[in-house]
Amino acid sequence: MRIVVRERGTASTGRRERQVLGIVGGGQLGRMMVEASVRLDVDVRVLAPSAHSSAASIASDVVVGDHDDIGAVRAFGRSCDVVTFEHESTPTPVLDALDEAGVVLRPSADAMRSGSDKARQRLVATEIGMAVAPHVIVSSPGELREAAGRLGLAVVAKVAHGGYDGRGVRWLRSSGDVEDLATQLASDRATWVIEPDLQIDTELAVQIVRRPGGEVVVYPVVETVQREGICTMVTAPAGCAVHLAEQLTSAARRLAERLDLVGTLAVEAFVVDGQLLLNELAPRPHNSGHYTIDACVTSQFENHVRSVLDLPLGDAALVVPAAVMANVIARGDELTPLAEVPVPSGTSIHLYGKQPKRGRKVGHVTTVGNAGHPLAKIARDTASALERPERCVGLRAADGEGRP
Amino acid sequence: MRIVVRERGTASTGRRERQVLGIVGGGQLGRMMVEASVRLDVDVRVLAPSAHSSAASIASDVVVGDHDDIGAVRAFGRSCDVVTFEHESTPTPVLDALDEAGVVLRPSADAMRSGSDKARQRLVATEIGMAVAPHVIVSSPGELREAAGRLGLAVVAKVAHGGYDGRGVRWLRSSGDVEDLATQLASDRATWVIEPDLQIDTELAVQIVRRPGGEVVVYPVVETVQREGICTMVTAPAGCAVHLAEQLTSAARRLAERLDLVGTLAVEAFVVDGQLLLNELAPRPHNSGHYTIDACVTSQFENHVRSVLDLPLGDAALVVPAAVMANVIARGDELTPLAEVPVPSGTSIHLYGKQPKRGRKVGHVTTVGNAGHPLAKIARDTASALERPERCVGLRAADGEGRP
Repeated sequence: MRIVVRERGTASTGRRERQVLGIVGGGQLGRMMVEASVRLDVDVRVLAPSAHSSAASIASDVVVGDHDDIGAVRAFGRSCDVVTFEHESTPTPVLDALDEAGVVLRPSADAMRSGSDKARQRLVATEIGMAVAPHVIVSSPGELREAAGRLGLAVVAKVAHGGYDGRGVRWLRSSGDVEDLATQLASDRATWVIEPDLQIDTELAVQIVRRPGGEVVVYPVVETVQREGICTMVTAPAGCAVHLAEQLTSAARRLAERLDLVGTLAVEAFVVDGQLLLNELAPRPHNSGHYTIDACVTSQFENHVRSVLDLPLGDAALVVPAAVMANVIARGDELTPLAEVPVPSGTSIHLYGKQPKRGRKVGHVTTVGNAGHPLAKIARDTASALERPERCVGLRAADGEGRP
Repeated sequence: MRIVVRERGTASTGRRERQVLGIVGGGQLGRMMVEASVRLDVDVRVLAPSAHSSAASIASDVVVGDHDDIGAVRAFGRSCDVVTFEHESTPTPVLDALDEAGVVLRPSADAMRSGSDKARQRLVATEIGMAVAPHVIVSSPGELREAAGRLGLAVVAKVAHGGYDGRGVRWLRSSGDVEDLATQLASDRATWVIEPDLQIDTELAVQIVRRPGGEVVVYPVVETVQREGICTMVTAPAGCAVHLAEQLTSAARRLAERLDLVGTLAVEAFVVDGQLLLNELAPRPHNSGHYTIDACVTSQFENHVRSVLDLPLGDAALVVPAAVMANVIARGDELTPLAEVPVPSGTSIHLYGKQPKRGRKVGHVTTVGNAGHPLAKIARDTASALERPERCVGLRAADGEGRP
């Protein structure tokens, strides 16, 4: 490991030189990486757009700067021994600049680019033998019109770079919708993936964590529920047919290896007519893996930290028969105070320290227990109690989880 | 809740006024309280003797000061909405000064005093119907000599205030030992509890967390193993007879109520000739409850934070059939690097960010699984691998936990 001159030191306690893990990004994924690092006594430095951002507000070593500011990110990278990313949205020129500066990036710039590009993801999936939906890649108005003609309407258009949580996804249901996107393409020349409107039975996801050298651990396959492009609920393990879970796990292994990915790869898939199709990849800890904090021996965040520092990976097995995670998505500019939110049995509340605003993910709730229990209802009701003050009384009456 | 003028603000983000929980103490108990607070998005401020101490090094809001410096603690207390303690060693005059200054203390000064005084503990236990070993309270050389005469040698002498981890415990095996302590008593006039040398079958412990108003949750009864006065291993649940576990749980409920304790109370007991006897109390999260982080729905630290902020308590139930915690006790001035420590299945490593030195507790390992599995061996071997570099190769060969 390269030893660098610290630009901001945390290692001034007379202890021997310690590695610093740099985390680019100030959101909840960075925050949960920081939490995992604390348990392992790993020094982390966070690059965040504000000292009050979710990750920065709990970190003891923060550099304020934007993830798309090449100078800021390069200086940050040089002050760290290893740099990882909470999100794949860091622009390619920034990744290139870090690479050129000799900063150790995990995942690598290549893996970040391939893992985050929805057009490339489909190529890579096909190469490793994973089915993908019929699709057309377009980056001009002419290509878009041709694709819409070929696939018919309605189709789904997904921006190849930078979309998440429903952003960068558009339904094209009329020629007017096509022309709106064509006008945008004429000016920004972005790449989009055009897919037919699939009749999706189920959405599945899996997380794999890979170390330099190839050691991997794979988490259980989970079932996800989306609403308006945002994941609202995750059930572990998925109730799907065993062969589908095996196919997805196997595909995740081949994808991580094909991308030579170091870190975490989330693979999301659709089940359409009983067949598994790639939805998308994310080269990072993922919302569909938040349940691992409460339900698995080692969380995706700890294994992410372990993998990027080349430490032996921890056990990804469930410690409980089943778990359900429900996101807390704010409905206004405040949440219900915790004092008014009962905690049903099996349930853990996680808040991210983000300013609530309508539609913003500000936390999650996990309920663990036996698969026969109404875990989804309990998790969802608790998340709703946090989201909406007026439903809190209803929750108390409905779930009957009185505590002595 | 009293709203105070912030002496150091964390609530400057434009959000509405937030409570600040003050934690007095910079050790690992404070660190794990900070970790629990992060998940709940609770603002904490730590009073620690050094910015590099275990709790302070991971907190974003730290005041450097000693827990026995009345002025420092009072100023700290006034800057917080609620103050709690990671340890019962805060001196009585400091607690009194906080009380007089109107600082909200949880536990209260009274509960801290009673809960931490080994002489008073025995009175309180007797009052609520829990058996205690025959003992004599002494605070002068004459009383000590009389007690030694009455109980015979060998006896165990335990200082009433401030002892922990084997400190403040002395074996009196000869009249020379008695005279050494008598000499000390003549000058410091401390109070000691003198007990006969008990033939202990098993040591048990339990944690109870109590909210203002009386809501409690009780964790499972565990079995503890001590070496030279330091807890080395905890097994949950204890393998003792059910009626002993029930007696201890019931005693913990009555003790917490009798002390009007808000926060966490750890109750340690001996089993002697099949009978439960009080060993000692600690009015705080306790080493015997560290397993709750990995093995219970809600950790003792989260429930401690919840209780002192008067939030609904979380579920204290085990999520796994069994768990064993082994302390990592340094054997020298460094630990084995994590890169060289494999992580067996079911196992989580926690490091406290403390400078290792011989005999110092610097972390713990928890292994969860089925009671039939060699959890204790796995946890102990992993702790040993961290403690002693030379045993690491042996562990790899011995446990056969190869990961693909």
